[in-house]
Amino acid sequence: MTLVYFAIACGLVAVAYGFFTSGQVLRSPAGNEKMQDIAAAIQEGAKAYLGRQYLTIAIVGAVVAVVLFFTLGGLSTLGFLIGAVLSGVAGFVGMNISVRANVRTAEAARGSLQGGLTLAFRSGAVTGMLVAGLGLLSIAMLFWYLVEVSGYAPNDRPVIETLTSLAFGASLISIFARLGGGIFTKAADVGADLVGKVEAGIPEDDPRNPAVIADNVGDNVGDCAGMAADLFETYVVTLGLTMVSIALLMRGLDSELLTTLMALPLIVGGVCIITSIIGTYMVRLGKGQSIMGALYKGFWTTVILSIPAIWAVTHYALGDMSALIGGAPDSSGFLEGTSTALTDEANLGLTSGPQFTGWSLFYCMMIGLAVTGLLVWITEYYTGTNYRPVKSIAKASVTGHGTNVIQGLAISLESTALPTLVIVVAVIATYQIAGIIGVAFAATSLLAVAGMVVALDAYGPVTDNAGGIAEMAGLEDEVRHRTDALDAVGNTTKAVTKGYAIGSAALAALVLFGAYTTDLREFFPDANVDFSLSNPYVIVGLLLGALLPYLFGAFGMTAVGRAAGHVVEDVRNQFRDNPGIMAGTSRPNYARTVDIVTRAAIKEMIVPSLLPVLSPIAVYFIVTAVAGQNEGFAALGAMLLGVIVSGLFVAISMTSGGGAWDNAKKYIEDGNYGGKGSDAHKAAVTGDTVGDPYKDTAGPAVNPMIKITNIVALLLLAALAGQAAG
Amino acid sequence: MTLVYFAIACGLVAVAYGFFTSGQVLRSPAGNEKMQDIAAAIQEGAKAYLGRQYLTIAIVGAVVAVVLFFTLGGLSTLGFLIGAVLSGVAGFVGMNISVRANVRTAEAARGSLQGGLTLAFRSGAVTGMLVAGLGLLSIAMLFWYLVEVSGYAPNDRPVIETLTSLAFGASLISIFARLGGGIFTKAADVGADLVGKVEAGIPEDDPRNPAVIADNVGDNVGDCAGMAADLFETYVVTLGLTMVSIALLMRGLDSELLTTLMALPLIVGGVCIITSIIGTYMVRLGKGQSIMGALYKGFWTTVILSIPAIWAVTHYALGDMSALIGGAPDSSGFLEGTSTALTDEANLGLTSGPQFTGWSLFYCMMIGLAVTGLLVWITEYYTGTNYRPVKSIAKASVTGHGTNVIQGLAISLESTALPTLVIVVAVIATYQIAGIIGVAFAATSLLAVAGMVVALDAYGPVTDNAGGIAEMAGLEDEVRHRTDALDAVGNTTKAVTKGYAIGSAALAALVLFGAYTTDLREFFPDANVDFSLSNPYVIVGLLLGALLPYLFGAFGMTAVGRAAGHVVEDVRNQFRDNPGIMAGTSRPNYARTVDIVTRAAIKEMIVPSLLPVLSPIAVYFIVTAVAGQNEGFAALGAMLLGVIVSGLFVAISMTSGGGAWDNAKKYIEDGNYGGKGSDAHKAAVTGDTVGDPYKDTAGPAVNPMIKITNIVALLLLAALAGQAAG
Repeated sequence: MTLVYFAIACGLVAVAYGFFTSGQVLRSPAGNEKMQDIAAAIQEGAKAYLGRQYLTIAIVGAVVAVVLFFTLGGLSTLGFLIGAVLSGVAGFVGMNISVRANVRTAEAARGSLQGGLTLAFRSGAVTGMLVAGLGLLSIAMLFWYLVEVSGYAPNDRPVIETLTSLAFGASLISIFARLGGGIFTKAADVGADLVGKVEAGIPEDDPRNPAVIADNVGDNVGDCAGMAADLFETYVVTLGLTMVSIALLMRGLDSELLTTLMALPLIVGGVCIITSIIGTYMVRLGKGQSIMGALYKGFWTTVILSIPAIWAVTHYALGDMSALIGGAPDSSGFLEGTSTALTDEANLGLTSGPQFTGWSLFYCMMIGLAVTGLLVWITEYYTGTNYRPVKSIAKASVTGHGTNVIQGLAISLESTALPTLVIVVAVIATYQIAGIIGVAFAATSLLAVAGMVVALDAYGPVTDNAGGIAEMAGLEDEVRHRTDALDAVGNTTKAVTKGYAIGSAALAALVLFGAYTTDLREFFPDANVDFSLSNPYVIVGLLLGALLPYLFGAFGMTAVGRAAGHVVEDVRNQFRDNPGIMAGTSRPNYARTVDIVTRAAIKEMIVPSLLPVLSPIAVYFIVTAVAGQNEGFAALGAMLLGVIVSGLFVAISMTSGGGAWDNAKKYIEDGNYGGKGSDAHKAAVTGDTVGDPYKDTAGPAVNPMIKITNIVALLLLAALAGQAAG
Repeated sequence: MTLVYFAIACGLVAVAYGFFTSGQVLRSPAGNEKMQDIAAAIQEGAKAYLGRQYLTIAIVGAVVAVVLFFTLGGLSTLGFLIGAVLSGVAGFVGMNISVRANVRTAEAARGSLQGGLTLAFRSGAVTGMLVAGLGLLSIAMLFWYLVEVSGYAPNDRPVIETLTSLAFGASLISIFARLGGGIFTKAADVGADLVGKVEAGIPEDDPRNPAVIADNVGDNVGDCAGMAADLFETYVVTLGLTMVSIALLMRGLDSELLTTLMALPLIVGGVCIITSIIGTYMVRLGKGQSIMGALYKGFWTTVILSIPAIWAVTHYALGDMSALIGGAPDSSGFLEGTSTALTDEANLGLTSGPQFTGWSLFYCMMIGLAVTGLLVWITEYYTGTNYRPVKSIAKASVTGHGTNVIQGLAISLESTALPTLVIVVAVIATYQIAGIIGVAFAATSLLAVAGMVVALDAYGPVTDNAGGIAEMAGLEDEVRHRTDALDAVGNTTKAVTKGYAIGSAALAALVLFGAYTTDLREFFPDANVDFSLSNPYVIVGLLLGALLPYLFGAFGMTAVGRAAGHVVEDVRNQFRDNPGIMAGTSRPNYARTVDIVTRAAIKEMIVPSLLPVLSPIAVYFIVTAVAGQNEGFAALGAMLLGVIVSGLFVAISMTSGGGAWDNAKKYIEDGNYGGKGSDAHKAAVTGDTVGDPYKDTAGPAVNPMIKITNIVALLLLAALAGQAAG
């Protein structure tokens, strides 16, 4: 338990960092009265939206909690509630700091680029550390409570199910938050652009546009709160399910070694919070004034420091790094993973059961870190303004709207290739080194640096808002230039986080499927389920799983279109009823627009969010009714992989493509191909509009969707087993 | 062999119908001199392009033939060459009739809508019957030659490999033809629109536009020749591999019954050619003058007549429809498929080997026909101007380019859902009835009516061309209205064929995978390949397979953009160097533009077409090198399913989405939301441009791509086995 205490301590350090740095941010000057007025309106709108969103989610959550209570019992319900509440808290706190940092960033940017960068990044870092810290605390303290206080063995069913339910709570909230926030932010953004830029011919963030506050609110509730809830979910699911996999697969270990092994993901997460915090202090502009370079300094510091840090905690936890762990015959005979390189000899006669050494786990975690670096680099290539993809979209804009969109879609499709190859190589390598547990540890180290990655992302919406405030408050042009420069990099870092989250989902997919099959063996020892590709129910499951991201994407895109339509109508009405708005003599009714988007987003988020919750249940029961339970289990299992096989591509193509479209517009605005106001710019605005729901609504919500489908399947097995036993 | 002779006779009837109907078409009046001049230019361009395209393909084909000769021997090479040559012939003949029918359709449309419809549809029917007839003749005559002349048993390896090589030949040519033709047609179309409509402000098909002939050539070489080659491929692969599956799986049958069973797909194809021919005579406008209604009369006549016809030939072939066939223990113990409803009792003690009755096969074929009807209906819903999807895109055009594209993408994504559900239900039902052989027979009856489906499709480009000729020759407005009405329906029927082809690919996927695993058992009896989803190499294969359609789509979209860019440059140069063109005093150099598109399309088609040929080979060898041969086989097998699991969605979303965009534009042009020239119309033109490469280049080429990947894998197994033995 020393290890778990260490992890808890690191989680507390993250929270302390959050308090300390929030204080720094809040003590910075908040600008003049006009700026503060605007910021207050944004704050008010964001709070109002999040309040209503969480109320709606709470109702759904309460229903699910009751169902869980009666099917899986009190502990699972407790886990679910903790996951749900902390996911909400991560989003809420992130939004809270972000709506205060925006105006202060605008004020700081009046002084210098470095000033704006420091303030915005600090605010992002608060969100980042809270996401990782709260995530770590929730798993570590729950594990401590169950094992140390309640006295369960670390691989007792209640421990496994409570950790799974914790992940479920986090996922369920996060899909609502991602999708609701995503619909809000893009409906407001698209709606504001359509009537503002296109119809009325006024610039972005012009205070005469009644939707302008809603647009800025959207940055905070979607890109900040929604994203934070999503990454909290990813963190908890990845670390939690690595622990669950260890518990399920390493049956033969004695309790003490098992506890140590299960605590290892926790302390890896812990030290990487420390290295992330150190990294945040390295974010400084160099001579070249490269913003991406400044952010990279922080990111690479974290990654490089994490190498010895992970080695140190692994060594500390396991002692002898070369000693063989595991290899006891696994009664299920399932999912054998053997470290061929290291244990060929020792493995003779052992037909199953994962087996590895401390070194093998360390190597796998290094591969996880390498995947992080590669995904960041690939995403920057596809969405940064310095490389072929974005430039090709900008060039295609010269020949019109159509060719801009065609090239953007081509880049979307293409951008899936390198991440897939990286993930494939990582799966093969880690599996060769330490079997399925190796894959799980790679996913863990990938997520361990989430604090830093979220910090890079959460800084973006702050600078976006700061730009809006600068525009509305009529600050010097220079300020807007600085915030725009910060914002362009923010587009890339936003895309990075999404690629990172979905990449981790692909790595975790194998682990989640392993958990599913092991659970199946354990709960239904008599079931004879054929997961072979030659079983047609496996094909059926793969196809139905693959359909989910498409259907979900269609819902998300349509929702944005519909909600944006409401915004357009409202703004048109305001312009018509109150001609003083365009003349600049009277103030638009910002709150009314915010309220309209709020209601639309909340209404639109419910059905698609329930899709991944209900689909696995429906598939299991329908196929079981038609072809029997074995085939029902087979189709359900295949569905879990179908959803990732298709979701990986849908999500990456949408998030990278959307980022590329956005930055192609920015590239033209920087004076290329005729600059602002040219025909090429108009075409690029179209691409940007298309990319908006792609990258900020449908695409990122695929990640929690994949997790929910998997977790619901795991819980369904447990519930069915309870039914059968009860 | 009587059955095979019957099939050959039906194939000859189709060819005779082609000759007879071609004569009817050619004897129709060909319009005035100006019209004939224009038609001659289109003819010349189409011939020049196809000549060069087939020359390039011939070089690739010759290389592949040499490789086949040295790895699989002379018979396989013969099969490959027959498939390749006939695929080319189907495309060439289709193009030839279509470039002559276009001008005659324009002339006939001067008289009446019915006149234009009859002529265009007859021309389409020639292509349709030749595709089905040549397809049937090639398989039936090859089977006859091998079994009757050369004296092989119907399930000897040379028979199996020669039929597989026949399919390979057809597929390889068709991917080049689909992609090359698709790039040509859309590069010309997009390029012509960009400089013509957008820059110069002249209408579509204005004779002053130097790209206008290239655009019309594209309809013939892409939508007609490319489509015909594609459907020829689909027909041959589906029927041929149904026969191969029977040969592989029904080892226990005596030779006579096996021959009968293998001939059954051939005679089903044969009678459905007859019902298709009858159907073509039912295409007549009713009182309501509904063009879709007229086409439906023909289609439904064919489908309904096929029900008793299929029953009759099945009964004739098998005699007692209730007698059990098969059920002898399959030595491989693989792929057991049992007709649970009919044979539970008889099956006792038999653990494997497919078993079914004549009735079960008949039911499966009825399910195949039902799938055809449902896919047609669903595609019409998503792409017809009377339903929600197209109307929603038209409505979204009012708020601009961006919302048009967003709604179009949402419809694209959504349109995958119903076809997937239909396919899933069909797989479950046919598998329950007659195992994997049942699935194969459903695919066969689906494809049996291909003659009719192709006829519906091939009529589209003829009317499109007729409209172009009417415009360029300055015919009465009325004529253009009639051809436009015919063309709008053509957009839907084009989408139907593509959905139909990809739907059959999904059904065939299971059969192809069955052939792969059975071959594997036979060639490598000692291999211990784990196709379970818990094998990480299976996941790796699924992910890599799923990547192929994305990468392929990216290549296709980029190619169109690049080639269209060349067109734009050329047209701009012509306008600049020769001001007489815009003044209408001098004739543009049409041939130069055709030549530029020709060279660009041929250059761009090569790399993407080789992707599905080389990827399976690369995956097998790389994974084998890293993890051993068993894992290499597992990854390769999973790749085959990965490519269909992702390709189904990519293809349907692209083809339905593209059709919907096109018809949303037409819906606005019919006077809705402001009609032609309004802002909504401009936005709809953007959507149409985006949809062009989606629906005519990248999307449809996914179908042959999926087949090639599968067939290359089958041939690779045979080649490896030959190597191991040799």
